[in-house]
Amino acid sequence: MYTLYYSPGAASMLPHLLLLEIGAAFQLRLVDIESGANRDADYLRLNPNGVLPTLAIDDQPCRETPALLLMLCERHPEAGLAPAPGTPSRNAFLQWVLFLANTLQPAFRLWFYPSDVEGVDAVALKAAMRVRIESCFDQLDELLADGRPYLLGAEISALDFYAVMLMRWSRNMPRPATQWPRLKALADRVRARPSWIHLYDVEGLTEWA
Amino acid sequence: MYTLYYSPGAASMLPHLLLLEIGAAFQLRLVDIESGANRDADYLRLNPNGVLPTLAIDDQPCRETPALLLMLCERHPEAGLAPAPGTPSRNAFLQWVLFLANTLQPAFRLWFYPSDVEGVDAVALKAAMRVRIESCFDQLDELLADGRPYLLGAEISALDFYAVMLMRWSRNMPRPATQWPRLKALADRVRARPSWIHLYDVEGLTEWA
Repeated sequence: MYTLYYSPGAASMLPHLLLLEIGAAFQLRLVDIESGANRDADYLRLNPNGVLPTLAIDDQPCRETPALLLMLCERHPEAGLAPAPGTPSRNAFLQWVLFLANTLQPAFRLWFYPSDVEGVDAVALKAAMRVRIESCFDQLDELLADGRPYLLGAEISALDFYAVMLMRWSRNMPRPATQWPRLKALADRVRARPSWIHLYDVEGLTEWA
Repeated sequence: MYTLYYSPGAASMLPHLLLLEIGAAFQLRLVDIESGANRDADYLRLNPNGVLPTLAIDDQPCRETPALLLMLCERHPEAGLAPAPGTPSRNAFLQWVLFLANTLQPAFRLWFYPSDVEGVDAVALKAAMRVRIESCFDQLDELLADGRPYLLGAEISALDFYAVMLMRWSRNMPRPATQWPRLKALADRVRARPSWIHLYDVEGLTEWA
């Protein structure tokens, strides 16, 4: 049984989408970042860093967005959200999930919260992170250059959901991800899915629908 | 068949250690960071970001250090370097590998290469990264507070090799990881292994033996 602690439009969107794609039973618990609920003592007991999401799996709180992606993929192989171990695109799947985890997502974190880095000029830090984020979009775009519809090829995978969630975070940046035509086409495919539409309804999202 | 592109003491140390622990056959190719060989056209064809390591698996170049960790663990389950899917510590394994990947290792990157972030005061950035790195050590130390010898419990796993490699990178920092007694004990266990000793010999390392 799953319980997902989420805030609308936060990184919790990824496990939320994957749970919907899987068709797993889960409960949602709102931890609203806007009101600072992620710093409440109750939530800090589940997630000492006070970040979203936390996914309780059989009452065990688990964190780190890309780790939750890997957990959900391997717990539900029948959902086909990841190439199985030993199949040709398995290595690419792991490599690109980790690239989003260790390069693109941390750059967004610093873009949104430059004051997390005490003593550093926020404007300069954001400018540098913008360059880094756009370079990541270049690399994802290049993956699609052979005409494939999804990042790993013909089939959608959890990597696409992760990438499109992060692309969404660029919507108010000077150069949003949708300015890369192939990335926009990928986003359109993901945004047309029932899981995405249902999540927007449940989380009360409107922008970038 | 594996070919590991490495530079002494770089992040390539992790797949190198894991290959030795597994007992897999592999070839080593030196790409010396000190001489800038990681920016050579030949290497950039394998690894467009010019970072170490690259691991060629059956002639397919793969990158992202923690992704290589996951690939090697799942390709060699008999080596017991990761809890198998479905076992009790599997979620903790994935969570902590991703924590090192998306928090500790990127902080080290900025500590070592603050000029990667153009226009930002390098001294202030390093100071902020030092705080972040030490906070990560606090969290790893806390995992060991119940007296367990390894980060997941009684058995060593690839997570320990990853953590100890990153701890090594703090050796010339104001507060190296070995100042946390439980982390030092963990490092001592890993540094006593034949794989670590052999790697030091092959890579020509001396510090922090």
